[in-house]
Amino acid sequence: MNFPSKLIENAVNEMSKLPGIGKKTALRLVLHLLKKDEENTIHLAEAITNMRMQIQYCRECHNISDAEVCAICNSPSRDRSLVCVVEDTRDVLAIENTSQYKGLYHVLGGIISPIEGVGPSDLHIDSLVRRIPESEIKEVILALSPTMEGDTTAFYLTKKFKPFNLKISTIARGIPVGGELEYADEITLGRSIVRRTAYEL
Amino acid sequence: MNFPSKLIENAVNEMSKLPGIGKKTALRLVLHLLKKDEENTIHLAEAITNMRMQIQYCRECHNISDAEVCAICNSPSRDRSLVCVVEDTRDVLAIENTSQYKGLYHVLGGIISPIEGVGPSDLHIDSLVRRIPESEIKEVILALSPTMEGDTTAFYLTKKFKPFNLKISTIARGIPVGGELEYADEITLGRSIVRRTAYEL
Repeated sequence: MNFPSKLIENAVNEMSKLPGIGKKTALRLVLHLLKKDEENTIHLAEAITNMRMQIQYCRECHNISDAEVCAICNSPSRDRSLVCVVEDTRDVLAIENTSQYKGLYHVLGGIISPIEGVGPSDLHIDSLVRRIPESEIKEVILALSPTMEGDTTAFYLTKKFKPFNLKISTIARGIPVGGELEYADEITLGRSIVRRTAYEL
Repeated sequence: MNFPSKLIENAVNEMSKLPGIGKKTALRLVLHLLKKDEENTIHLAEAITNMRMQIQYCRECHNISDAEVCAICNSPSRDRSLVCVVEDTRDVLAIENTSQYKGLYHVLGGIISPIEGVGPSDLHIDSLVRRIPESEIKEVILALSPTMEGDTTAFYLTKKFKPFNLKISTIARGIPVGGELEYADEITLGRSIVRRTAYEL
Protein backbone atom coordinates (compact mmCIF):
# COMPACT_ATOMS: atom_id res chain seq x y z
CA MET A 1 0.00 0.00 0.00
CA ASN A 2 1.30 3.48 -0.85
CA PHE A 3 0.36 5.89 1.89
CA PRO A 4 -0.24 9.56 1.13
CA SER A 5 1.78 10.57 4.19
CA LYS A 6 4.75 9.25 6.17
CA LEU A 7 2.87 10.08 9.39
CA ILE A 8 -0.02 7.86 8.37
CA GLU A 9 2.32 5.10 7.25
CA ASN A 10 4.16 5.16 10.56
CA ALA A 11 0.94 5.07 12.60
CA VAL A 12 -0.47 2.24 10.48
CA ASN A 13 2.74 0.23 10.84
CA GLU A 14 2.73 0.59 14.63
CA MET A 15 -0.99 -0.21 14.89
CA SER A 16 -0.68 -3.30 12.72
CA LYS A 17 1.87 -4.79 15.15
CA LEU A 18 -1.05 -5.41 17.51
CA PRO A 19 -2.46 -8.96 17.38
CA GLY A 20 -5.37 -9.43 14.97
CA ILE A 21 -4.90 -6.01 13.36
CA GLY A 22 -3.76 -6.02 9.75
CA LYS A 23 -2.77 -3.05 7.59
CA LYS A 24 -6.31 -2.41 6.34
CA THR A 25 -7.84 -2.43 9.82
CA ALA A 26 -4.97 -0.28 11.10
CA LEU A 27 -5.66 2.26 8.36
CA ARG A 28 -9.34 2.30 9.29
CA LEU A 29 -8.44 2.95 12.95
CA VAL A 30 -5.96 5.68 12.03
CA LEU A 31 -8.46 7.45 9.74
CA HIS A 32 -11.02 7.17 12.55
CA LEU A 33 -8.62 8.96 14.92
CA LEU A 34 -8.12 11.66 12.27
CA LYS A 35 -11.86 12.25 12.04
CA LYS A 36 -12.25 12.61 15.81
CA ASP A 37 -10.93 15.41 18.04
CA GLU A 38 -7.22 15.57 18.79
CA GLU A 39 -8.01 14.91 22.46
CA ASN A 40 -9.21 11.40 21.66
CA THR A 41 -5.83 10.45 20.24
CA ILE A 42 -3.93 12.14 23.06
CA HIS A 43 -6.02 10.35 25.70
CA LEU A 44 -5.45 7.02 23.99
CA ALA A 45 -1.69 7.60 23.69
CA GLU A 46 -1.46 8.71 27.32
CA ALA A 47 -3.57 5.82 28.60
CA ILE A 48 -1.42 3.16 26.94
CA THR A 49 1.86 4.87 27.87
CA ASN A 50 0.88 5.34 31.53
CA MET A 51 -0.41 1.78 31.66
CA ARG A 52 2.82 0.36 30.24
CA MET A 53 5.21 2.48 32.31
CA GLN A 54 3.43 2.47 35.68
CA ILE A 55 1.97 -1.02 35.82
CA GLN A 56 2.93 -3.16 38.80
CA TYR A 57 2.56 -6.84 39.52
CA CYS A 58 1.37 -8.17 42.87
CA ARG A 59 4.29 -9.45 44.98
CA GLU A 60 2.15 -12.38 46.14
CA CYS A 61 0.15 -13.64 43.17
CA HIS A 62 1.85 -11.83 40.22
CA ASN A 63 -1.47 -10.51 39.00
CA ILE A 64 -1.56 -6.99 37.53
CA SER A 65 -1.98 -4.50 40.34
CA ASP A 66 -1.96 -0.79 41.15
CA ALA A 67 -0.04 -1.46 44.38
CA GLU A 68 2.70 -3.76 45.63
CA VAL A 69 0.08 -6.25 46.83
CA CYS A 70 -3.12 -6.55 44.76
CA ALA A 71 -6.66 -5.92 45.96
CA ILE A 72 -7.52 -9.63 46.00
CA CYS A 73 -4.46 -10.66 48.05
CA ASN A 74 -5.11 -7.74 50.40
CA SER A 75 -8.83 -8.39 50.87
CA PRO A 76 -9.81 -9.72 54.33
CA SER A 77 -12.92 -11.37 52.87
CA ARG A 78 -11.07 -13.85 50.64
CA ASP A 79 -10.57 -17.48 51.66
CA ARG A 80 -6.80 -17.81 52.26
CA SER A 81 -6.87 -21.61 52.30
CA LEU A 82 -7.62 -21.76 48.55
CA VAL A 83 -5.35 -20.75 45.69
CA CYS A 84 -6.36 -20.95 42.04
CA VAL A 85 -3.46 -21.31 39.59
CA VAL A 86 -4.07 -19.63 36.21
CA GLU A 87 -2.09 -18.82 33.11
CA ASP A 88 -2.64 -15.06 32.91
CA THR A 89 -4.62 -12.04 34.07
CA ARG A 90 -7.44 -12.68 31.64
CA ASP A 91 -8.22 -15.95 33.42
CA VAL A 92 -8.39 -14.13 36.77
CA LEU A 93 -10.84 -11.64 35.24
CA ALA A 94 -12.94 -14.44 33.75
CA ILE A 95 -13.16 -16.32 37.07
CA GLU A 96 -13.81 -13.12 39.05
CA ASN A 97 -16.69 -12.32 36.70
CA THR A 98 -18.44 -15.54 37.73
CA SER A 99 -18.59 -14.37 41.42
CA GLN A 100 -18.29 -18.07 42.34
CA TYR A 101 -14.77 -18.05 43.72
CA LYS A 102 -13.64 -16.40 46.93
CA GLY A 103 -10.09 -17.74 47.29
CA LEU A 104 -6.74 -16.35 46.17
CA TYR A 105 -4.98 -16.63 42.79
CA HIS A 106 -1.55 -17.35 41.47
CA VAL A 107 -0.76 -16.09 37.95
CA LEU A 108 1.91 -18.22 36.26
CA GLY A 109 2.48 -15.68 33.48
CA GLY A 110 2.31 -18.37 30.81
CA ILE A 111 2.31 -22.10 30.36
CA ILE A 112 5.07 -24.69 29.86
CA SER A 113 5.55 -24.96 26.10
CA PRO A 114 8.78 -26.52 24.80
CA ILE A 115 7.83 -25.54 21.23
CA GLU A 116 7.70 -21.86 22.14
CA GLY A 117 10.75 -22.23 24.39
CA VAL A 118 8.84 -21.59 27.63
CA GLY A 119 10.19 -23.69 30.49
CA PRO A 120 9.23 -23.86 34.19
CA SER A 121 11.91 -21.29 35.08
CA ASP A 122 10.21 -18.70 32.83
CA LEU A 123 7.01 -18.95 34.88
CA HIS A 124 6.12 -17.93 38.44
CA ILE A 125 6.29 -21.52 39.69
CA ASP A 126 9.10 -21.19 42.24
CA SER A 127 7.32 -18.34 43.98
CA LEU A 128 4.17 -20.49 44.20
CA VAL A 129 6.12 -23.38 45.75
CA ARG A 130 7.73 -20.92 48.19
CA ARG A 131 4.36 -19.37 48.95
CA ILE A 132 2.69 -22.61 50.10
CA PRO A 133 4.55 -23.36 53.36
CA GLU A 134 4.52 -19.67 54.31
CA SER A 135 0.74 -19.40 53.96
CA GLU A 136 -2.52 -21.00 55.05
CA ILE A 137 -3.07 -22.64 51.62
CA LYS A 138 -4.75 -26.05 51.92
CA GLU A 139 -6.09 -26.55 48.39
CA VAL A 140 -4.65 -25.69 45.01
CA ILE A 141 -7.10 -25.47 42.09
CA LEU A 142 -5.45 -25.90 38.71
CA ALA A 143 -7.43 -23.79 36.23
CA LEU A 144 -5.31 -24.32 33.11
CA SER A 145 -6.34 -24.80 29.48
CA PRO A 146 -7.22 -28.40 28.49
CA THR A 147 -4.35 -28.50 25.99
CA MET A 148 -1.14 -30.51 25.85
CA GLU A 149 0.73 -27.53 27.35
CA GLY A 150 -1.87 -27.07 30.08
CA ASP A 151 -1.70 -30.76 31.01
CA THR A 152 2.12 -30.66 31.03
CA THR A 153 2.10 -27.64 33.32
CA ALA A 154 -0.48 -29.27 35.61
CA PHE A 155 1.61 -32.46 35.79
CA TYR A 156 4.78 -30.49 36.59
CA LEU A 157 2.99 -28.54 39.32
CA THR A 158 1.49 -31.63 41.00
CA LYS A 159 5.02 -33.13 41.24
CA LYS A 160 6.27 -29.90 42.83
CA PHE A 161 3.40 -29.99 45.35
CA LYS A 162 4.23 -33.55 46.48
CA PRO A 163 6.19 -32.52 49.65
CA PHE A 164 3.23 -30.57 50.97
CA ASN A 165 0.05 -31.97 52.40
CA LEU A 166 -2.20 -30.29 49.84
CA LYS A 167 -5.51 -31.06 48.22
CA ILE A 168 -5.05 -30.59 44.47
CA SER A 169 -8.10 -30.13 42.27
CA THR A 170 -8.83 -29.06 38.73
CA ILE A 171 -11.78 -27.25 37.19
CA ALA A 172 -14.59 -29.49 35.97
CA ARG A 173 -14.63 -30.40 32.28
CA GLY A 174 -17.93 -31.24 30.63
CA ILE A 175 -20.74 -30.04 28.42
CA PRO A 176 -21.11 -26.25 28.75
CA VAL A 177 -24.33 -25.04 30.36
CA GLY A 178 -26.71 -24.43 27.46
CA GLY A 179 -24.59 -26.57 25.13
CA GLU A 180 -26.28 -29.24 23.07
CA LEU A 181 -25.07 -32.83 23.33
CA GLU A 182 -25.03 -33.46 19.59
CA TYR A 183 -22.55 -30.63 18.99
CA ALA A 184 -20.13 -31.61 21.77
CA ASP A 185 -16.85 -33.26 20.75
CA GLU A 186 -16.40 -36.94 21.67
CA ILE A 187 -13.67 -36.38 24.27
CA THR A 188 -15.71 -33.82 26.20
CA LEU A 189 -18.89 -35.89 25.98
CA GLY A 190 -16.99 -39.06 26.97
CA ARG A 191 -15.41 -37.36 29.98
CA SER A 192 -18.74 -35.87 31.01
CA ILE A 193 -20.17 -39.41 31.28
CA VAL A 194 -17.16 -40.98 32.99
CA ARG A 195 -16.96 -38.10 35.50
CA ARG A 196 -20.70 -37.71 35.97
CA THR A 197 -21.81 -35.95 39.15
CA ALA A 198 -24.69 -36.59 41.56
CA TYR A 199 -27.96 -35.11 40.35
CA GLU A 200 -28.98 -32.04 42.34
CA LEU A 201 -32.45 -30.58 42.35
CA MET B 1 -15.80 -6.27 33.85
CA ASN B 2 -13.82 -5.53 37.00
CA PHE B 3 -10.25 -4.66 36.12
CA PRO B 4 -7.39 -5.44 38.50
CA SER B 5 -5.90 -2.00 37.90
CA LYS B 6 -7.13 1.52 37.11
CA LEU B 7 -4.33 1.85 34.56
CA ILE B 8 -5.56 -1.20 32.67
CA GLU B 9 -9.16 -0.04 32.89
CA ASN B 10 -8.26 3.35 31.49
CA ALA B 11 -6.25 1.89 28.60
CA VAL B 12 -9.02 -0.61 27.78
CA ASN B 13 -11.65 2.15 27.83
CA GLU B 14 -9.65 4.33 25.43
CA MET B 15 -8.84 1.41 23.12
CA SER B 16 -12.45 0.29 22.96
CA LYS B 17 -13.50 3.70 21.60
CA LEU B 18 -11.91 2.64 18.30
CA PRO B 19 -14.36 1.25 15.73
CA GLY B 20 -14.77 -2.53 15.78
CA ILE B 21 -12.88 -2.92 19.06
CA GLY B 22 -14.92 -4.05 22.04
CA LYS B 23 -13.83 -4.36 25.67
CA LYS B 24 -12.60 -7.92 25.29
CA THR B 25 -10.49 -7.18 22.22
CA ALA B 26 -9.17 -4.01 23.87
CA LEU B 27 -8.10 -6.04 26.90
CA ARG B 28 -6.33 -8.51 24.63
CA LEU B 29 -4.46 -5.66 22.92
CA VAL B 30 -3.54 -4.04 26.25
CA LEU B 31 -2.23 -7.32 27.70
CA HIS B 32 -0.26 -7.82 24.48
CA LEU B 33 1.40 -4.43 24.98
CA LEU B 34 2.23 -5.41 28.57
CA LYS B 35 3.96 -8.59 27.40
CA LYS B 36 6.09 -6.74 24.84
CA ASP B 37 8.91 -4.28 25.52
CA GLU B 38 8.05 -0.80 26.76
CA GLU B 39 9.45 0.64 23.53
CA ASN B 40 6.65 -0.95 21.51
CA THR B 41 4.02 0.96 23.46
CA ILE B 42 6.00 4.20 23.35
CA HIS B 43 6.46 3.94 19.59
CA LEU B 44 2.76 3.27 19.09
CA ALA B 45 1.76 6.19 21.31
CA GLU B 46 4.22 8.53 19.58
CA ALA B 47 3.18 7.41 16.10
CA ILE B 48 -0.51 8.10 16.66
CA THR B 49 0.13 11.38 18.51
CA ASN B 50 2.50 12.69 15.81
CA MET B 51 0.11 11.59 13.11
CA ARG B 52 -2.84 13.35 14.72
CA MET B 53 -1.02 16.57 15.63
CA GLN B 54 1.13 17.06 12.52
CA ILE B 55 -1.16 15.81 9.77
CA GLN B 56 -1.95 18.23 6.96
CA TYR B 57 -4.53 18.19 4.22
CA CYS B 58 -3.69 19.13 0.64
CA ARG B 59 -4.86 22.66 -0.15
CA GLU B 60 -5.97 21.52 -3.61
CA CYS B 61 -7.60 18.09 -3.23
CA HIS B 62 -8.05 17.82 0.59
CA ASN B 63 -6.32 14.47 0.65
CA ILE B 64 -4.04 13.67 3.61
CA SER B 65 -0.62 15.08 2.93
CA ASP B 66 2.78 15.71 4.49
CA ALA B 67 2.99 19.12 2.82
CA GLU B 68 0.68 21.99 1.91
CA VAL B 69 0.12 20.47 -1.55
CA CYS B 70 0.09 16.66 -1.78
CA ALA B 71 2.42 14.49 -3.85
CA ILE B 72 -0.30 13.69 -6.41
CA CYS B 73 -1.34 17.34 -6.98
CA ASN B 74 2.36 18.27 -7.19
CA SER B 75 3.37 15.53 -9.60
CA PRO B 76 4.18 16.72 -13.15
CA SER B 77 3.28 13.29 -14.56
CA ARG B 78 -0.42 13.40 -13.61
CA ASP B 79 -3.12 14.28 -16.15
CA ARG B 80 -4.45 17.66 -14.98
CA SER B 81 -7.53 17.50 -17.21
CA LEU B 82 -9.06 14.68 -15.12
CA VAL B 83 -10.34 14.90 -11.55
CA CYS B 84 -11.78 11.94 -9.67
CA VAL B 85 -14.22 12.83 -6.87
CA VAL B 86 -14.12 10.41 -3.92
CA GLU B 87 -15.55 10.23 -0.42
CA ASP B 88 -12.35 9.81 1.60
CA THR B 89 -8.63 9.00 1.62
CA ARG B 90 -9.24 5.25 1.60
CA ASP B 91 -10.85 5.56 -1.84
CA VAL B 92 -7.79 7.44 -3.14
CA LEU B 93 -5.57 4.65 -1.82
CA ALA B 94 -7.77 1.98 -3.41
CA ILE B 95 -7.76 3.68 -6.83
CA GLU B 96 -4.01 4.41 -6.63
CA ASN B 97 -3.39 0.73 -5.93
CA THR B 98 -4.95 -0.18 -9.29
CA SER B 99 -2.29 1.89 -11.16
CA GLN B 100 -5.01 2.54 -13.77
CA TYR B 101 -5.63 6.21 -13.05
CA LYS B 102 -3.24 9.07 -13.77
CA GLY B 103 -5.46 12.09 -13.12
CA LEU B 104 -6.01 14.19 -10.01
CA TYR B 105 -8.38 13.64 -7.08
CA HIS B 106 -10.80 15.61 -5.00
CA VAL B 107 -11.62 14.24 -1.54
CA LEU B 108 -15.07 15.33 -0.35
CA GLY B 109 -14.45 14.25 3.24
CA GLY B 110 -17.80 12.46 3.43
CA ILE B 111 -21.06 12.05 1.59
CA ILE B 112 -24.40 13.89 1.74
CA SER B 113 -26.47 12.08 4.36
CA PRO B 114 -29.50 13.87 5.84
CA ILE B 115 -29.96 11.05 8.37
CA GLU B 116 -26.48 11.62 9.81
CA GLY B 117 -26.86 15.37 9.49
CA VAL B 118 -24.21 15.77 6.79
CA GLY B 119 -25.15 18.45 4.26
CA PRO B 120 -23.27 19.84 1.23
CA SER B 121 -21.73 22.61 3.34
CA ASP B 122 -20.01 20.01 5.55
CA LEU B 123 -18.12 18.63 2.54
CA HIS B 124 -15.38 20.04 0.30
CA ILE B 125 -17.83 20.77 -2.51
CA ASP B 126 -17.43 24.57 -2.75
CA SER B 127 -13.66 24.23 -3.12
CA LEU B 128 -14.21 21.74 -5.95
CA VAL B 129 -16.59 24.12 -7.74
CA ARG B 130 -14.06 26.96 -7.25
CA ARG B 131 -11.23 24.71 -8.44
CA ILE B 132 -12.77 23.91 -11.83
CA PRO B 133 -12.59 27.32 -13.61
CA GLU B 134 -9.12 27.97 -12.15
CA SER B 135 -7.72 24.72 -13.53
CA GLU B 136 -7.36 22.64 -16.69
CA ILE B 137 -10.04 20.16 -15.56
CA LYS B 138 -12.11 18.86 -18.50
CA GLU B 139 -13.62 15.70 -17.05
CA VAL B 140 -14.95 14.89 -13.59
CA ILE B 141 -15.19 11.21 -12.65
CA LEU B 142 -17.64 10.55 -9.84
CA ALA B 143 -16.33 7.56 -7.87
CA LEU B 144 -18.90 7.43 -5.08
CA SER B 145 -20.55 4.46 -3.39
CA PRO B 146 -23.63 3.02 -5.19
CA THR B 147 -25.86 3.88 -2.22
CA MET B 148 -28.71 6.34 -1.76
CA GLU B 149 -26.26 8.82 -0.20
CA GLY B 150 -23.74 8.33 -3.00
CA ASP B 151 -26.42 8.91 -5.65
CA THR B 152 -27.70 12.01 -3.82
CA THR B 153 -24.17 13.44 -3.66
CA ALA B 154 -23.57 12.64 -7.34
CA PHE B 155 -26.86 14.32 -8.31
CA TYR B 156 -26.03 17.43 -6.25
CA LEU B 157 -22.57 17.64 -7.81
CA THR B 158 -23.82 17.31 -11.40
CA LYS B 159 -26.18 20.25 -10.77
CA LYS B 160 -23.28 22.32 -9.41
CA PHE B 161 -21.20 21.47 -12.49
CA LYS B 162 -23.92 22.69 -14.93
CA PRO B 163 -22.37 26.17 -15.55
CA PHE B 164 -19.10 24.62 -16.71
CA ASN B 165 -18.47 22.85 -19.98
CA LEU B 166 -17.43 19.58 -18.33
CA LYS B 167 -17.60 15.92 -19.23
CA ILE B 168 -19.07 14.10 -16.23
CA SER B 169 -18.56 10.36 -15.90
CA THR B 170 -19.02 7.74 -13.23
CA ILE B 171 -17.15 4.52 -12.53
CA ALA B 172 -18.55 1.45 -14.31
CA ARG B 173 -20.96 -0.74 -12.38
CA GLY B 174 -21.24 -4.39 -13.33
CA ILE B 175 -20.24 -7.92 -12.51
CA PRO B 176 -16.87 -7.94 -10.70
CA VAL B 177 -14.01 -9.55 -12.60
CA GLY B 178 -13.98 -13.19 -11.46
CA GLY B 179 -17.55 -12.87 -10.16
CA GLU B 180 -20.07 -15.53 -11.14
CA LEU B 181 -23.31 -14.47 -12.84
CA GLU B 182 -25.56 -16.65 -10.71
CA TYR B 183 -24.40 -14.97 -7.49
CA ALA B 184 -24.78 -11.39 -8.74
CA ASP B 185 -27.74 -9.39 -7.42
CA GLU B 186 -30.50 -8.54 -9.92
CA ILE B 187 -29.81 -4.79 -10.04
CA THR B 188 -26.11 -5.26 -10.82
CA LEU B 189 -26.79 -7.97 -13.39
CA GLY B 190 -29.62 -5.95 -14.97
CA ARG B 191 -27.43 -2.85 -15.24
CA SER B 192 -24.56 -4.87 -16.67
CA ILE B 193 -26.81 -5.94 -19.55
CA VAL B 194 -28.40 -2.54 -20.17
CA ARG B 195 -24.99 -0.82 -20.09
CA ARG B 196 -23.11 -3.55 -21.96
CA THR B 197 -19.85 -2.51 -23.57
CA ALA B 198 -18.26 -3.40 -26.93
CA TYR B 199 -16.45 -6.74 -26.84
CA GLU B 200 -12.69 -6.33 -26.91
CA LEU B 201 -10.29 -9.09 -27.72
